[in-house]
Amino acid sequence: MKVEAGSVTSVPGFLAAGVACGLKVNGNKDLALVVSDEPAVAAGVFTRNLVKGHSLVRTMELLAAGQARGIVINSGNANACVGADGPVAAEAMAASVAKELSCRPAEILTGSTGVIGKRLDLQAVERGAKLAAAGLTSDVAGGNDAERAIMTTDLIPKEGVVRFEIDGKTITLAGMAKGSGMIHPNMATMICVITTDALISQPLLQQLLKASVDQTFNRVSVDGDTSVCDMVVVLANGKSGLAEILPGTTGANQFQAALVALGTHLSRLIARDGEGATKLIELQVSGARTAEDAYKIIQAVGKSPLVKTAMFGEDANWGRILTAAGYSGADFDPNGCDIYLGDLKVCEAGTALLFDEARASEILQENEILIRIELSDGDASDHLWTCDFSYDYVKINGSYRT
Amino acid sequence: MKVEAGSVTSVPGFLAAGVACGLKVNGNKDLALVVSDEPAVAAGVFTRNLVKGHSLVRTMELLAAGQARGIVINSGNANACVGADGPVAAEAMAASVAKELSCRPAEILTGSTGVIGKRLDLQAVERGAKLAAAGLTSDVAGGNDAERAIMTTDLIPKEGVVRFEIDGKTITLAGMAKGSGMIHPNMATMICVITTDALISQPLLQQLLKASVDQTFNRVSVDGDTSVCDMVVVLANGKSGLAEILPGTTGANQFQAALVALGTHLSRLIARDGEGATKLIELQVSGARTAEDAYKIIQAVGKSPLVKTAMFGEDANWGRILTAAGYSGADFDPNGCDIYLGDLKVCEAGTALLFDEARASEILQENEILIRIELSDGDASDHLWTCDFSYDYVKINGSYRT
Repeated sequence: MKVEAGSVTSVPGFLAAGVACGLKVNGNKDLALVVSDEPAVAAGVFTRNLVKGHSLVRTMELLAAGQARGIVINSGNANACVGADGPVAAEAMAASVAKELSCRPAEILTGSTGVIGKRLDLQAVERGAKLAAAGLTSDVAGGNDAERAIMTTDLIPKEGVVRFEIDGKTITLAGMAKGSGMIHPNMATMICVITTDALISQPLLQQLLKASVDQTFNRVSVDGDTSVCDMVVVLANGKSGLAEILPGTTGANQFQAALVALGTHLSRLIARDGEGATKLIELQVSGARTAEDAYKIIQAVGKSPLVKTAMFGEDANWGRILTAAGYSGADFDPNGCDIYLGDLKVCEAGTALLFDEARASEILQENEILIRIELSDGDASDHLWTCDFSYDYVKINGSYRT
Repeated sequence: MKVEAGSVTSVPGFLAAGVACGLKVNGNKDLALVVSDEPAVAAGVFTRNLVKGHSLVRTMELLAAGQARGIVINSGNANACVGADGPVAAEAMAASVAKELSCRPAEILTGSTGVIGKRLDLQAVERGAKLAAAGLTSDVAGGNDAERAIMTTDLIPKEGVVRFEIDGKTITLAGMAKGSGMIHPNMATMICVITTDALISQPLLQQLLKASVDQTFNRVSVDGDTSVCDMVVVLANGKSGLAEILPGTTGANQFQAALVALGTHLSRLIARDGEGATKLIELQVSGARTAEDAYKIIQAVGKSPLVKTAMFGEDANWGRILTAAGYSGADFDPNGCDIYLGDLKVCEAGTALLFDEARASEILQENEILIRIELSDGDASDHLWTCDFSYDYVKINGSYRT
């Protein structure tokens, strides 16, 4: 399915805003609000980190109800590891918004991203909530502002819209996401909000979301660090005018495909905009004995600093790729392993090939690099999007907090 | 036990040399030879990477015999992933040395470290073997030359000598080691050769070596990458004049303590000299539920690029430490977790403390930083030596091969 430009407000019935309330010292936008006209079905997938941010825990708990009016997200402060103050801050953030929207705080989900262990400035949040509620709009610009308000070290806002038809009626899904460090499967320092006008039950929405996330957001790695604040939340307001999407139908398959298309698009944007990244790297492994072996290999290769610095240096050092596969814990036969950089085979049956270095250099100069690892042990495959490791990664992360 | 300066030739009955034979393009020393006057008992511990260098595989196989005259190690080329040429090259390297020493090739162990997937220049190796054999000396300088000849991106040679007495007789252990990238438990791009004049059986030597390596060389991480060429080899020539060290005796305990002292010293040197490192970081975790939980935590924290760049930036960003522990897969209670930077508590019961930032800054400016994670789940503890992640790590590894 084709992914077009547009924002979360490209879906009928959704409003959004993004404002600056002083949580970021640089004065950039730092509070995003996405709201549905009417209560929406809500589903979510959350970090598997044992440590969880307070705003996220609140949303996990609220999702048991399966419904929400909207979500408020601040950037610049993770609202994590601050003890009893954390849940209070999350609740206050929701209450500030609910007051403006005349709904219950429990209808407003919360998310936070930024520095861990710093108490949230509640006056700033309250000011932001007022500003954002007053600025809510169904214009695309409202969604664009929200995209910017969830950015931390991201350089570009991340958005996408997918439309498809069932029975002549258009269903729209739109998403916004942020990276761009502390990114690794299960999940990333990633917050993603998806809006849709599909009519769908909460259990089915949750099921399709989970399945799509495993193929998309859980296949992005920037630095191997799994954050405490990661979440993907979907709000479905049912305004498409189409009958409910039911399990096992073509409509459900199409909806899932749309989630995967949107998630793939946003995941690639997150990897490409990884902290300090100069290149998007797509890893593909095939011929693995089991899915678990395939996963172990893409994980190890995708987080290897040696592989990632070699890509930054445009150095066809495939030995590091095979080495990472070798220590991944996966069971495979190194002597049956071929490795390709782009379309260039550099290693065959675990052994060095005398490949065309000039061609390798051309391939590695591209800003998108495909690395394929073809094993001969079975039929399992997997993929991962990651990025190279540059001076700027060190620069950005050497002084993030201060 | 005290570790003093000195080289592998500080042990009576050992000779060594290090020469330049043209494997390194910069003309530095690249072939090391360590030889015992007489056949020595030999034990070794090897990489757990599924992919293994050809020189290393040869040594693993030969160690079944439990004896060796010496070991020849080249740097600049890993002799790995080159197919059938690899075992041939390893055998030729040993044969060149054996010819000069008038012994069997099977008595000469082999090691290689450097670029993967490049065929070894056998003429250079033969030239080097001749030069090295001719230059063998029992002077400390011979061991010093060998230390330099195994270096790759290492900035400093790594050596140490431990002496202790049993029944009034001195036993000496001496070691040389190299790092300094592709370093992570099980094991590192690390090659270490230990010489000793103890009289000890092969099974006991193997057992004590394995136990000491788990506390020392398997507790170093530079970049999370486990190389294909890692080995620690011990040669024991029995020349101390003391009776055989037997299992379960005080002597065996002292010998093990000496191995741990020497291994700790060399492991710390490897971490401190990690590629681009500006600081040695010692991680300690205590109060973990199980040894496995403790190990998972030090591993995850020790390889987190976010933690390591924060240390480079001298940023007291303890949230990243707790985050890494949280995604390590260890089972622990985040709300019972205290974190210390040096002697400064920065997190108590999983919650931010308002600590003295000036004091934190002082601590982080040191070139050696202790990070303690105190859990409240049990009695297990563990430790790891690692280093910070700097611009120079990226620089060194962005263009290693070319």
